[in-house]
Amino acid sequence: MVGGGRDAFIGAVHRHAAFLDGRIDLVAGAFSSTAEKSRVSGKDLFLDPKRVYANYREMAESEAALPDGDRIDFVSIVTPNHMHYPVAAAFLRAGYNVVCDKPMTFDLAEARKLRTLVKRTGKVFALTHNYTGYPMVKEARDLVRRGKLGEVRKVVSEYPQGWLADKLEATGQKQAGWRTDPKRAGASSCIGDIGTHAENLARYITGLRIDSLCAELTTFVPGRKLEDDGNVLVRYKGGAKGIVYASQISVGEENALNIRVYGTRASLEWHQEHPNELIVKFSDKPRQVLRRGNAYTGRAATAHTRLPAGHPEAFIEAFANIYTEAADAISEEVSGRKPKPHDYPDADDGVYGMAFIDTCLKSSASKQKWTKFPRV
Amino acid sequence: MVGGGRDAFIGAVHRHAAFLDGRIDLVAGAFSSTAEKSRVSGKDLFLDPKRVYANYREMAESEAALPDGDRIDFVSIVTPNHMHYPVAAAFLRAGYNVVCDKPMTFDLAEARKLRTLVKRTGKVFALTHNYTGYPMVKEARDLVRRGKLGEVRKVVSEYPQGWLADKLEATGQKQAGWRTDPKRAGASSCIGDIGTHAENLARYITGLRIDSLCAELTTFVPGRKLEDDGNVLVRYKGGAKGIVYASQISVGEENALNIRVYGTRASLEWHQEHPNELIVKFSDKPRQVLRRGNAYTGRAATAHTRLPAGHPEAFIEAFANIYTEAADAISEEVSGRKPKPHDYPDADDGVYGMAFIDTCLKSSASKQKWTKFPRV
Amino acid sequence: MVGGGRDAFIGAVHRHAAFLDGRIDLVAGAFSSTAEKSRVSGKDLFLDPKRVYANYREMAESEAALPDGDRIDFVSIVTPNHMHYPVAAAFLRAGYNVVCDKPMTFDLAEARKLRTLVKRTGKVFALTHNYTGYPMVKEARDLVRRGKLGEVRKVVSEYPQGWLADKLEATGQKQAGWRTDPKRAGASSCIGDIGTHAENLARYITGLRIDSLCAELTTFVPGRKLEDDGNVLVRYKGGAKGIVYASQISVGEENALNIRVYGTRASLEWHQEHPNELIVKFSDKPRQVLRRGNAYTGRAATAHTRLPAGHPEAFIEAFANIYTEAADAISEEVSGRKPKPHDYPDADDGVYGMAFIDTCLKSSASKQKWTKFPRV
Amino acid sequence: MVGGGRDAFIGAVHRHAAFLDGRIDLVAGAFSSTAEKSRVSGKDLFLDPKRVYANYREMAESEAALPDGDRIDFVSIVTPNHMHYPVAAAFLRAGYNVVCDKPMTFDLAEARKLRTLVKRTGKVFALTHNYTGYPMVKEARDLVRRGKLGEVRKVVSEYPQGWLADKLEATGQKQAGWRTDPKRAGASSCIGDIGTHAENLARYITGLRIDSLCAELTTFVPGRKLEDDGNVLVRYKGGAKGIVYASQISVGEENALNIRVYGTRASLEWHQEHPNELIVKFSDKPRQVLRRGNAYTGRAATAHTRLPAGHPEAFIEAFANIYTEAADAISEEVSGRKPKPHDYPDADDGVYGMAFIDTCLKSSASKQKWTKFPRV
Repeated sequence: MVGGGRDAFIGAVHRHAAFLDGRIDLVAGAFSSTAEKSRVSGKDLFLDPKRVYANYREMAESEAALPDGDRIDFVSIVTPNHMHYPVAAAFLRAGYNVVCDKPMTFDLAEARKLRTLVKRTGKVFALTHNYTGYPMVKEARDLVRRGKLGEVRKVVSEYPQGWLADKLEATGQKQAGWRTDPKRAGASSCIGDIGTHAENLARYITGLRIDSLCAELTTFVPGRKLEDDGNVLVRYKGGAKGIVYASQISVGEENALNIRVYGTRASLEWHQEHPNELIVKFSDKPRQVLRRGNAYTGRAATAHTRLPAGHPEAFIEAFANIYTEAADAISEEVSGRKPKPHDYPDADDGVYGMAFIDTCLKSSASKQKWTKFPRV
Repeated sequence: MVGGGRDAFIGAVHRHAAFLDGRIDLVAGAFSSTAEKSRVSGKDLFLDPKRVYANYREMAESEAALPDGDRIDFVSIVTPNHMHYPVAAAFLRAGYNVVCDKPMTFDLAEARKLRTLVKRTGKVFALTHNYTGYPMVKEARDLVRRGKLGEVRKVVSEYPQGWLADKLEATGQKQAGWRTDPKRAGASSCIGDIGTHAENLARYITGLRIDSLCAELTTFVPGRKLEDDGNVLVRYKGGAKGIVYASQISVGEENALNIRVYGTRASLEWHQEHPNELIVKFSDKPRQVLRRGNAYTGRAATAHTRLPAGHPEAFIEAFANIYTEAADAISEEVSGRKPKPHDYPDADDGVYGMAFIDTCLKSSASKQKWTKFPRV
Repeated sequence: MVGGGRDAFIGAVHRHAAFLDGRIDLVAGAFSSTAEKSRVSGKDLFLDPKRVYANYREMAESEAALPDGDRIDFVSIVTPNHMHYPVAAAFLRAGYNVVCDKPMTFDLAEARKLRTLVKRTGKVFALTHNYTGYPMVKEARDLVRRGKLGEVRKVVSEYPQGWLADKLEATGQKQAGWRTDPKRAGASSCIGDIGTHAENLARYITGLRIDSLCAELTTFVPGRKLEDDGNVLVRYKGGAKGIVYASQISVGEENALNIRVYGTRASLEWHQEHPNELIVKFSDKPRQVLRRGNAYTGRAATAHTRLPAGHPEAFIEAFANIYTEAADAISEEVSGRKPKPHDYPDADDGVYGMAFIDTCLKSSASKQKWTKFPRV
Repeated sequence: MVGGGRDAFIGAVHRHAAFLDGRIDLVAGAFSSTAEKSRVSGKDLFLDPKRVYANYREMAESEAALPDGDRIDFVSIVTPNHMHYPVAAAFLRAGYNVVCDKPMTFDLAEARKLRTLVKRTGKVFALTHNYTGYPMVKEARDLVRRGKLGEVRKVVSEYPQGWLADKLEATGQKQAGWRTDPKRAGASSCIGDIGTHAENLARYITGLRIDSLCAELTTFVPGRKLEDDGNVLVRYKGGAKGIVYASQISVGEENALNIRVYGTRASLEWHQEHPNELIVKFSDKPRQVLRRGNAYTGRAATAHTRLPAGHPEAFIEAFANIYTEAADAISEEVSGRKPKPHDYPDADDGVYGMAFIDTCLKSSASKQKWTKFPRV
């Protein structure tokens, strides 16, 4: 693991997710930007001190020098955004597979470079758009693919949070600090951190790709450098229309990622805060509530379910499903087996997400004009 | 009553609402565009055949000829949109108060003319934006006015329906027929019929007025002449941002008018399909669910409540609250008492709503550009 | 109307319900136990002072003396329980049809006498077990009757309220006063006032009749004479088992009448506070949410629906459905037409409900032993 | 681990829970009643074949022979009920700490013997009444303890499931097989398997202890030997009243453990299937929804929370909280540190639960009479 020392949020989540199934061990790490903090974090995690490194470069080199079977199989990158590219590039070049937090990189250009490197090295690169790991999100995708909704006409994907409604970064809070700092987060805060999840979720479920968009980005908190709210109208290729919005100033909202997809024959609705249910609506028959763990769910939902119905699964289990899929691919890569198709967000998804951020920023900078989505 | 004969939807709703409190009697009407249908409908309603008229002009004249105390006190107009103006004008000129269904008129110019006439005659003109009659909507407005939310930053007002997802108007269904017909509905179907409710609700609760907007109107059903879906980004005067959307093709949605208002100190959420609850969210204390009928609700909610908590009230009771407020004003007008301030949507609200429709249409016609809201 | 003057709760509800459809007029009444209060209440209601009576006996006599077509068609009795029998008997004997609030009478013996009188006179007697007027309750009954649930195995019917958690009757609050007074309410408060609704709802939906029961009645509030909480285990004839419980001391509960019915093939769940939805559960397919106003609901639900789906109906509309059914029967009786089968709670239901109260009291008095339900 | 081989349900849950925090490793096991199945299961779990044992006796002995620091620190017992006692006794006697699934033993006598053994050996014995691991259950307990509810008057604890509505055990399904088999499950199926959870949850939150109860146990599925449904009226010491019910034949219910606690000042409600919310109700102010992960929750909830608000936690995380508390105690025991107070269900809870089962069976056997709860 690179990043994820004491006080970090997402590093701990990655570890819970990786440990859950007893299949992945944490054996080495460079957990912080300072050697001492890294050392202390490694101790917290019961690691062999020899494999707790002062920085990611030392880690990539030293691990590579270990004998076959002893060195790590992949690295998890859980740093702020500006470090994703250098760390991923270093480990890919040193021959390692990579699991990386989102958004993929600091900007779109870096994302394209990283994708090229991934393709050249042939290594696994998994991006933790974790919300696509939820079984009922997979079920939603299945329903769309199997034509149960008919043709998709409209998508509303929303992600309001309220935790940055005040200037939290001024208090020294670490998570707020880097997410609102253009040097570490990139040119976007709200869209980059959570708007990309909303976009990714819509694309994962529907397969729709954006033709053009009109983004109204706003910075509500005085003195903040990056936007903390974004409302986006979307035209999808093929004629469907969408709304994607994200917010960090929606007081009292916690992590309210919700999606509604309307087709010609049926519609669906899913709420991240109640993830075990998928609501399907029809014009001529009763609304259905599909619940995780039942025999009537499709193959993908079932394959990513650990517990019977009524025994709720949640965030960590969904996150772990990204790891499980990545681990299958990594296991194949490490053992030289032929890769099977896998279900994790990859470098193409990462580039697409960065293009979404980039296009929202461009639209907003041009007085919120409709802006063409680039070829990715 | 003018309109509201057999097969009509909204006429029956107006009657339930008017009858509910035992304070308003239906005594005369011109219920249809044909004399025979009007006659039959009048009989269904136990009316004196002499006061069932062949058309609205005959009604206005004949009622005016009745002695004081015998004639009607006001007329309820429940026709398709294109008849609102002529009927309202005829009755206002004949000295009657008017309750009129929304949207106010066929187009913005007519609305302005009608408002001028209302002001000149001094009569009561109440527009049935019925959703503002819900007690918990009034409570929401109170919370905003009393500063409980702080400054409002963001409003999301949505109104998806699914009943026009197929070409229902082709089957002869009456409601679908006129609502999708530019000759009777005006230049908009979806925004005119329900988008205006979503806008009106947002304005009623927050008091915010629109600076400019960007509207993406879409006609999804082939062969339909008017839009059946609309997504609108809004900039409010003072800096708040908003999303207003409405849809008639959202399969499986029934009447899902929902609103969320985010302030600097707290936020609120209300769902028309569960109208007895108002959710209030904070950053630092438990979410609250305010429920109609409790002693802790404010004056306005309490004054518009008929039943104790837990005995749900719903659509008709809210609609009746518009009638109650209008009836108070009409009673003052008829008896020559000094008018008190009342809480019903009036001609100004009607003009504002027509301006909203008009601006959405203009934005959409100009390739979905941001468009300035007119002075109203 | 007899009872229902100023400050009364249920009288106003009866009036809203009766007025809603424009089919029933209030023309006469004895609204209070004192002549002066009755007079004032009559004035509030815009009645002809000549038909506002000092007491129910005067009313029964005077109305009977009016010419055919002028006198009332039926009386609504909305007094405290102890007056149900004398008033109903007086009006039945004077040749009137009766709508009466529940529970039917002061005790079981009176109920039996009243039923005998109803049968002898041949008049309509409708008891306002209003919760069976909800369309989705009727839908639930239809599902059971049509075998969709298979054989019913278990019923859980609950009715917690919290309004009597403190000694409200000591403050002079009128509703609390008579409901906790054995001279006016009868030998039971909680079971009589609301437990009977829970029992009636279970019986209406399932058709099950009680074999024996075990009741634990408790008076939690010191100094109160009647029970304010009751938990009852039920054995139904045929082998199904049930739980019926009611409470007036469940702080924060408003009017939480809920029922769950479990069959061999499917189960259902309905909540009075969200009455437009009926949840149906299966072992092998998605949970269904049936919503009022859709074409897929059965004949009974549809016939008792006024508004389209998504336009919620609630307590008053359900109450009005009892009046509608009673009005059909009264109309037949008054005009001498042959009676059709109707769907309102009648004298048999009233006797059954009184037997339920009586058996709960007996069980509780015998140290909560299992007690046989009497023949009714 | 003893038990939990292929096809087992609860063994896998224990492993997820133990692994989640990266603090517990699985190093040895006797996973099945046959040596071969144990071997295969051990391989699935990446274990050293030398530490995969043919049976629990061999495991207890062989592990004890390993050098200090190499041998296991504790055993997790995840077998059917009849094996809990012999396995636990063997490991306790061999000097190991024990985590054991519930119910504690086959019958009450065994439970008492086991408790004596636990006390004599001084080892840690943790029983996985996992539902008390949920943060919002701990918050509920805190609210009661801090007097926020006033005095508790009534508790309704319910646990309906539907998975045994048909004779699933006849199909060879393993979980159904042993749970309905008196030789392996003990004298109760429904109350033993899930009724004990409902009782334990009520006791954990309220601290109330049972004075006497009246239990109606029913076997609905023909040919089944143990009860599949149970409704229990409870009198708590001190005067509170309760209902505890559990069911395995409630078609369509998944794992609907719900509890409502009514106090003199406030009430609370929690639903296992939506575990991140705790609803608190008052008579005089808005209903509150407390959500896990917020700063306003108490010490116990916060200490057992891994993720921020809105990032839902669920069953495995709650289960892991039992392991975390047990692991703290085991760590103290192994290292000889002074034990601190811990928050996991222990041998006393186990004996209490077995007494609950026993008393329900006695009441039911005596024609459902009220039966005194024994001293435990």
